Amino acid sequence: MKLIDGKAVAAQIKLEIAEEVKQILASGGKRPHLAAILVGHDGGSETYVASKVKTCEEVGFQSTLIRYEEDVTEDELLGKVCELNENPGIDGFIVQLPLPKHISEQKVIETIDYRKDVDGFHPVNVGRMSIGLPCFVSATPAGILELLKRYDIETSGKHCVVLGRSNIVGKPVANLLMQKAYPGDCTVTVCHSRTKDIKKYCLEADIIIAALGSPEFLKGDMVREGAVVIDVGTTRVSSTETKSGFKLKGDVKFDEVAPKCSYITPVPGGVGPMTIISLMRNTLLAGKKGIYGYL
Amino acid sequence: MKLIDGKAVAAQIKLEIAEEVKQILASGGKRPHLAAILVGHDGGSETYVASKVKTCEEVGFQSTLIRYEEDVTEDELLGKVCELNENPGIDGFIVQLPLPKHISEQKVIETIDYRKDVDGFHPVNVGRMSIGLPCFVSATPAGILELLKRYDIETSGKHCVVLGRSNIVGKPVANLLMQKAYPGDCTVTVCHSRTKDIKKYCLEADIIIAALGSPEFLKGDMVREGAVVIDVGTTRVSSTETKSGFKLKGDVKFDEVAPKCSYITPVPGGVGPMTIISLMRNTLLAGKKGIYGYL
Repeated sequence: MKLIDGKAVAAQIKLEIAEEVKQILASGGKRPHLAAILVGHDGGSETYVASKVKTCEEVGFQSTLIRYEEDVTEDELLGKVCELNENPGIDGFIVQLPLPKHISEQKVIETIDYRKDVDGFHPVNVGRMSIGLPCFVSATPAGILELLKRYDIETSGKHCVVLGRSNIVGKPVANLLMQKAYPGDCTVTVCHSRTKDIKKYCLEADIIIAALGSPEFLKGDMVREGAVVIDVGTTRVSSTETKSGFKLKGDVKFDEVAPKCSYITPVPGGVGPMTIISLMRNTLLAGKKGIYGYL
Repeated sequence: MKLIDGKAVAAQIKLEIAEEVKQILASGGKRPHLAAILVGHDGGSETYVASKVKTCEEVGFQSTLIRYEEDVTEDELLGKVCELNENPGIDGFIVQLPLPKHISEQKVIETIDYRKDVDGFHPVNVGRMSIGLPCFVSATPAGILELLKRYDIETSGKHCVVLGRSNIVGKPVANLLMQKAYPGDCTVTVCHSRTKDIKKYCLEADIIIAALGSPEFLKGDMVREGAVVIDVGTTRVSSTETKSGFKLKGDVKFDEVAPKCSYITPVPGGVGPMTIISLMRNTLLAGKKGIYGYL
């Protein structure tokens, strides 16, 4: 069994991005600039955004954090999105989700210029990904593919079972892994809450991507010898073992599943660290106008 | 075994659309108007476009056919697309594919205003479909879902195996059938040229959508008792039996497979007739501004 060390891979990519930024600046180019809009003071969102801003600094990006209180109107927020769309100094930006209930997340996402949509949530990016065209791929699916690639895991002709059909993980990762590409060329099965006998599908899988958000769902008797298991779950469960009073639990019962796997990601330290780094890669691409050309 | 009669369903929907057009006109509304651009004189394209124009007449739509010779420049074609985008009299339009090699099909598709993209090929429509938002769904996948619906075929929790991963059938139909919806809520497996042991997957399927474009690929020993089989294949093979000198062959070896099925579509007369009718439904929706509101 080989542990997929997402933390180490993310650290390596961070160095690679920092190096590329240096080269861009050395040749007279512009420092990539990511903006983030944060509404309210949700604990999780605060942590994520702080971490994104910090990583920007580490790789040499400029970053701008724009904060609104919980009671910001939808119009005001959309106005800021349009302003960022127009601002030539900003290469890419994100609006941290979730948003307060009185604001339509979908409307906000669709108002973002898809050429600056480094989260990859805009329908143009989702659609282009499905068609197999260059686009901003959302962070978690991109991170998963990067891990498969960095560990040189064979995917062509493999049976990949995706557990979960969310718009941010299950559906896009399934779409990516069925493309004519590497990583890709998998036979892909998408399972979800309505699937009957999910165990049967898991036992047939060469690769399992667990993205149900159901702690320790995947047990040892659901995985066959030699499988590759990617655990996308990150559910906070209360714990007396940690200072914070909670612990992150994956979708995989690690102690049972790991011994059977050829490769497995831990939680934390697997897919998680890749998510922010994928956002950084998208920002670098946006800065280089690497997908949609000059705006 | 029950034969799914796509011709009869299409005829029924044609009546429903015609009735709705009458009501729109009676209440002072505007007649839906579809435009089609046809480049060159490809036999297949000529037939398809003629059939679309004829069906428009039958349901009471206005239609406009715009023809170009094979040597039209990309710029000229894109100029016409922009003109149709701006023309408030045109509710929806299509550019018949394939296009000559010197013209980028993708560029043409992306130039179409997605709000008039009744073929559903624009990335915005593809992306919104994947996310589960209202959009123009492309004709063949929409036609397949409509057949499942009209025959009241249970899909929730069923294992649907999609053979083929094309952008116009395999991928979108897989996306649709995994959505939280009816028809939908299937466990979906997408198989393709790289799949090992495709027979194994087919034998486990409750529903098979065959869209490989490989005549008579699906044999009797690949299907289990009671399966639902949807045949999307339409390959022209030469034949001495017909006046035209060719015959349409599906992806299913019908005589072997049909006796085992609970439901099966024939070729011709199955999915085929639903394709044009789905385009008409999209045009009706476009005319009513039923998805994206007033332009």
